[in-house]
Amino acid sequence: MNQPIGIFDSGLGGLTVLKALAQKFPGESFCYVGDIARLPYGNKSPETIRKYGVQILDYLKRENVKALIIACNSASTVFLNEKHYQGLPLLNVIGPGSRAALAKSADKRIAVLGTSATIRSGAYGKTLRQLDPSAMVIERACPLFVPLAEEGMSADDITLAVARRYLQDIKDQAIATVVLGCTHYPLLKADILKALTPTTQLIESGEVLAEELSQLFAAGELRPASPGSVGELRIKITDLTDHFERLALQLMHPLSIGPLERIVL
Amino acid sequence: MNQPIGIFDSGLGGLTVLKALAQKFPGESFCYVGDIARLPYGNKSPETIRKYGVQILDYLKRENVKALIIACNSASTVFLNEKHYQGLPLLNVIGPGSRAALAKSADKRIAVLGTSATIRSGAYGKTLRQLDPSAMVIERACPLFVPLAEEGMSADDITLAVARRYLQDIKDQAIATVVLGCTHYPLLKADILKALTPTTQLIESGEVLAEELSQLFAAGELRPASPGSVGELRIKITDLTDHFERLALQLMHPLSIGPLERIVL
Repeated sequence: MNQPIGIFDSGLGGLTVLKALAQKFPGESFCYVGDIARLPYGNKSPETIRKYGVQILDYLKRENVKALIIACNSASTVFLNEKHYQGLPLLNVIGPGSRAALAKSADKRIAVLGTSATIRSGAYGKTLRQLDPSAMVIERACPLFVPLAEEGMSADDITLAVARRYLQDIKDQAIATVVLGCTHYPLLKADILKALTPTTQLIESGEVLAEELSQLFAAGELRPASPGSVGELRIKITDLTDHFERLALQLMHPLSIGPLERIVL
Repeated sequence: MNQPIGIFDSGLGGLTVLKALAQKFPGESFCYVGDIARLPYGNKSPETIRKYGVQILDYLKRENVKALIIACNSASTVFLNEKHYQGLPLLNVIGPGSRAALAKSADKRIAVLGTSATIRSGAYGKTLRQLDPSAMVIERACPLFVPLAEEGMSADDITLAVARRYLQDIKDQAIATVVLGCTHYPLLKADILKALTPTTQLIESGEVLAEELSQLFAAGELRPASPGSVGELRIKITDLTDHFERLALQLMHPLSIGPLERIVL
């Protein structure tokens, strides 16, 4: 097996990121940790989120990964300014997501949707305004989106009603670029686009991290897998129920994954 | 301070139980632990729930409590048959809730609402049928109720739509006795009654545990606080955010509580 890239999330939402990366870099191996036993991170304090994050980064380092990716937006907010962790390249989703949003927005009016922790941190707003002081940013907490996504309630009247309540004024202001600042939110893309307008440009963590990883390879800061190699995907979670096993298979389809492995942190 | 009674829940929902007990037994002191850093328990495996539960029971024992109450229904399912923990009386909510439901139901047709973990365990159904083999029991997982309650979305159109989806067939079958098998659910009582019928008899954990505690005192199995004493309420949580501090004050109103104390387990 190639030396893998480590990636973590509070739960399985980050598999939307893993899938995007595995499809873009089929030669790379990935080791994913989903901290299901302690999810969601989105309503926890920064101190607690950091403590859990450090435990997982340490775990991934012991698994001999060559780089570390924090797929979880809530966790990214507490590692925002750290480019390395114990000598390994460390990527978070906030910076790349912000750069992608600015690149795709014509009028620099951007909305960011996230968990309570992500929005409370103001990390996206600060990053976007640092990158472009003229940017106009609306940050909106959407705390029910994670449980709705975990219940598989996409393309659902109730989810649409929740989305309309969270997003009506973003639609009214005709904001055309919206950052999905949580790995679960791509699962509710249909409802979010319906509550906004179908032409809204959605920025997803998986795509922006794939782009970021490309740049690390191109800049020689990270060595790609040797040519012709076939990557492996290992998924480790801190709790295991049938529900999560099924959800993981759905999220990763059509990619094949081995059995989920339960770990204790 | 009197020797307190220990009580724990996965989060702050159990404060509905603490409040009922503190109002019924104003001379008793209570030490409450809410495991906010790791909530919700309702979608975790029995092994993980038990591990967390044991950590909290051990903590409460070190706090010199005279009895232990598991307010959390999900945690109660994994301690269902244990009447003592390291020599201390141990109460869970499933047995008392089942007895109360049977006592109040004329036709022995009972619905139980709970988290995925509580319903998956089948603990209420088994207990009810052991107590009365003629009982007809419907168990229904309502996984979105906890996040809706935590978001303060009671008496809300979205919550009512969710309640109608979960409860329509219980209403159609005219089931008159419904166990609120999660400490958060009393917070959504208005919506639940509207989705059912206003005359539905709801069984709440707080009331049934108050009755259970009365019986322990009456049977001499637990010594009550000395006459004339004034109880104290201590609330300890494993994570602390402003949101939870406000929620705790709301839930305990009009009772006064000291500042929330953060503990590490």
